[in-house]
Amino acid sequence: MSVLHKKSARLRDEERARLIWLLSTDKAVTSSLLGKLTLAERYDDSTLADDLAEVEMLVSHLPPPDLADALEALPYDARNALWRLVADDKRGKVLLEASESVWGDLIEEMSDHDLLFALQNLDIDEQVYLLQHLPRDLTGRLLATLPADKRARIRQMMRYADNTVGAIMEFEVITVRPEATLAAVQRYLRRLGKMPENTDKLFVTTRNKLLLGELELQTILLNDAQKRVGEVMEGDPVTFQPHEDAEKVARTFERDDLLSAAVIDADGKLMGRLTIDEIVDVVYEETDNDLRRMGGLSNDDDVFAPVSKAVKTRWAWLAVNLCTAFIASRVIDGFEHTISQLVALASLMPIVAGIGGNTGNQTITMIVRAMALQHIQPGSFTFLILREMGVALINGIVWGGIMGAITWWLYDDPQLGGVMTLAMMLNLLMAAMMGVIIPMVMVKLGRDPAVGSSVMITAITDTGGFFIFLGLATLFLM
Amino acid sequence: MSVLHKKSARLRDEERARLIWLLSTDKAVTSSLLGKLTLAERYDDSTLADDLAEVEMLVSHLPPPDLADALEALPYDARNALWRLVADDKRGKVLLEASESVWGDLIEEMSDHDLLFALQNLDIDEQVYLLQHLPRDLTGRLLATLPADKRARIRQMMRYADNTVGAIMEFEVITVRPEATLAAVQRYLRRLGKMPENTDKLFVTTRNKLLLGELELQTILLNDAQKRVGEVMEGDPVTFQPHEDAEKVARTFERDDLLSAAVIDADGKLMGRLTIDEIVDVVYEETDNDLRRMGGLSNDDDVFAPVSKAVKTRWAWLAVNLCTAFIASRVIDGFEHTISQLVALASLMPIVAGIGGNTGNQTITMIVRAMALQHIQPGSFTFLILREMGVALINGIVWGGIMGAITWWLYDDPQLGGVMTLAMMLNLLMAAMMGVIIPMVMVKLGRDPAVGSSVMITAITDTGGFFIFLGLATLFLM
Repeated sequence: MSVLHKKSARLRDEERARLIWLLSTDKAVTSSLLGKLTLAERYDDSTLADDLAEVEMLVSHLPPPDLADALEALPYDARNALWRLVADDKRGKVLLEASESVWGDLIEEMSDHDLLFALQNLDIDEQVYLLQHLPRDLTGRLLATLPADKRARIRQMMRYADNTVGAIMEFEVITVRPEATLAAVQRYLRRLGKMPENTDKLFVTTRNKLLLGELELQTILLNDAQKRVGEVMEGDPVTFQPHEDAEKVARTFERDDLLSAAVIDADGKLMGRLTIDEIVDVVYEETDNDLRRMGGLSNDDDVFAPVSKAVKTRWAWLAVNLCTAFIASRVIDGFEHTISQLVALASLMPIVAGIGGNTGNQTITMIVRAMALQHIQPGSFTFLILREMGVALINGIVWGGIMGAITWWLYDDPQLGGVMTLAMMLNLLMAAMMGVIIPMVMVKLGRDPAVGSSVMITAITDTGGFFIFLGLATLFLM
Repeated sequence: MSVLHKKSARLRDEERARLIWLLSTDKAVTSSLLGKLTLAERYDDSTLADDLAEVEMLVSHLPPPDLADALEALPYDARNALWRLVADDKRGKVLLEASESVWGDLIEEMSDHDLLFALQNLDIDEQVYLLQHLPRDLTGRLLATLPADKRARIRQMMRYADNTVGAIMEFEVITVRPEATLAAVQRYLRRLGKMPENTDKLFVTTRNKLLLGELELQTILLNDAQKRVGEVMEGDPVTFQPHEDAEKVARTFERDDLLSAAVIDADGKLMGRLTIDEIVDVVYEETDNDLRRMGGLSNDDDVFAPVSKAVKTRWAWLAVNLCTAFIASRVIDGFEHTISQLVALASLMPIVAGIGGNTGNQTITMIVRAMALQHIQPGSFTFLILREMGVALINGIVWGGIMGAITWWLYDDPQLGGVMTLAMMLNLLMAAMMGVIIPMVMVKLGRDPAVGSSVMITAITDTGGFFIFLGLATLFLM
């Protein structure tokens, strides 16, 4: 970690905010950087030169993570203007730190050659990661520039799916032999002169890479230098395999307060390591995606995307919603005759549908979360259905009763009040049941329960609510 | 970290799953542990003895984090049965690892004395944290058992609000003086014999605790033993103050790949440190809470809570929802005359309301997320409003147009189709605008924009949608 990286967090927060502020408020700065100002315009603006100089100073000053944050927080034009100022040798790191949703904008104006050049300061696993996920796939060109042995290792790494350990592990590890003394290990480390970032432990292996244990830096410092590695190492460490799910591994890191862990192949040979910084990124990404999915947004919906892109990323859910609303509308249409005889039904039916949607969404949010946290076992299914239906029954009796009484009083019609109470109760029960069943079925079908669950439950409680209420009204009031 | 902690993650996953399975499927095990079986019943069941023995073995075997997970994944009875098996000296750690939502169940049957006894193996900051947040507040009793100087420090710590650095920092730090040689530091560490968990660096201070810098364990190992601490330390470290917001600090940890950081007071004196394991917990909690709040659930809504508790934690949102639905219903009621003349309006109005709700929720989710990630600056407000309204306008023209055409065809009424298109467009525009304004206003008022934003936007798009559609229909069709 460089010294630049480490400077006061508060000062950097201020500098980053200042940079964003300059670029998002002074349009002339952006225009000037994008070459859209004439010379006359440029010299007319007296604060422009100052602002430009300050922007340039801040860009050269701020470390990559802050530049990445600033890029994410700016609209399209300002984002491009800022990107032009980022030095070539910093661009790779900035891309790596920036979120996927802005990559498209940033590399738009870069040639393939520029892009490969920008990445050359990164570790090879970082390069591969970026090239695989950038909108333009340049992995072929990158591979061509590498020696054969490296190429083979990278091909292997590329096989691992996103969200697996293999895709986020690092190759750089320090290994030591069990028969070495701690003094020898220290001499070896001093000769190396540096360790990979976030190294809290070394790995103890045989000559052909079989993992025997871990040696924490702490252990080296706390024990007598004459002791041998094999005597003081942790002999039964937590390890992972490359095909394991990254989100699950993140839970293990959290549970065991791990800082790093070995990644081994099926034969127990050391392949690389996982570090907590990658895990923290996984956690942020995982939960961010969950939140977006529940709200019907796609993962690359960027808050500063232009209108055209935002329309494109959101139209699918809108279309689904329109279809379900249309179906609900046809259900109501089927009861046209009933409504024409008692128009009050039209004003009351959204209450029945709405309360069902609210309860269904509460239930489904809880179930989806509990599933993500692995708190739900197959055996709990019956309990959950019964519990949720119990809650719905009580709420149905209480709130349905209150609403029924109000309806009676408003329309002076006890029977209409009774229909209201019964319809609310039934719709709440259905909402609760479907709120448990929908995510369970989605998991059974191997799908992500968070995606679209809210849209689906609302569709069911709307259509069902209208049908139940208008159906009961037709039965009892006509 | 004990050896027990470190055993194979896979094996532990299996053991934990097995324990949960045994307790959630074999009711006799739970009943027997809770003393609800007669002797006859006990001896009739041949597998019971085996299952009981296995449960006991697993409980004594599994480390606290896994026991905590198992407790969270079990219904009330089984949870209590399992808790009875947990050894006294493990209970403190298990409580610490378990989520807040199960604490009430677990300590229900424990006396104050048992509880204080269970906590005595924990660090003092952990004890205070638990006692402050457990449903029963025993801080007074704990404080009484402590010497005066400790009591003062704890009183001070208790002053910090939840979600601040002060509430999650640890007091245990190792400090060294700048003039010491690295060899002397190594001798000192060996004499100490152990370091606090997750120590990746020591702190360099003056005699009266003024923080001068940080000394990573790496640095001790990589440099010549004759060098002085002051020569090789990091002199400008990232530090935090106790009143800072924990979620913001978590972002800094992520951005800078920190493993630990010093906490200092206003005079620059070292108070304690933050470690990445606490930060990971903060991240999980933060995002979990966001998800729950957006879905209208409270933070202590536990998936295995009994019906009575679930009714209590959820009734507030249900009541709010019912009120807003009632208002929407009154708006429709105002147009009773219009609807009675053209019943088709009753079936079409939910489409207008629904599409507005969908768009509003997409917008608000995106804005709330961007705010949490600090991607939105005051200057972006106009851009966001205009962008979202642009998206809404396009969607309104396209989907409103399609729906208008379908309406025309279904009811053979071009004017009704026109009203449909116009109403959808207007409601989408309103949804987009309110989706930006609501969270912005809530932040201005110092409130959490995630809480209730979804309920609020749905209320507005429903009421507004009905009003716009029925209002336009009254104007143009009557």
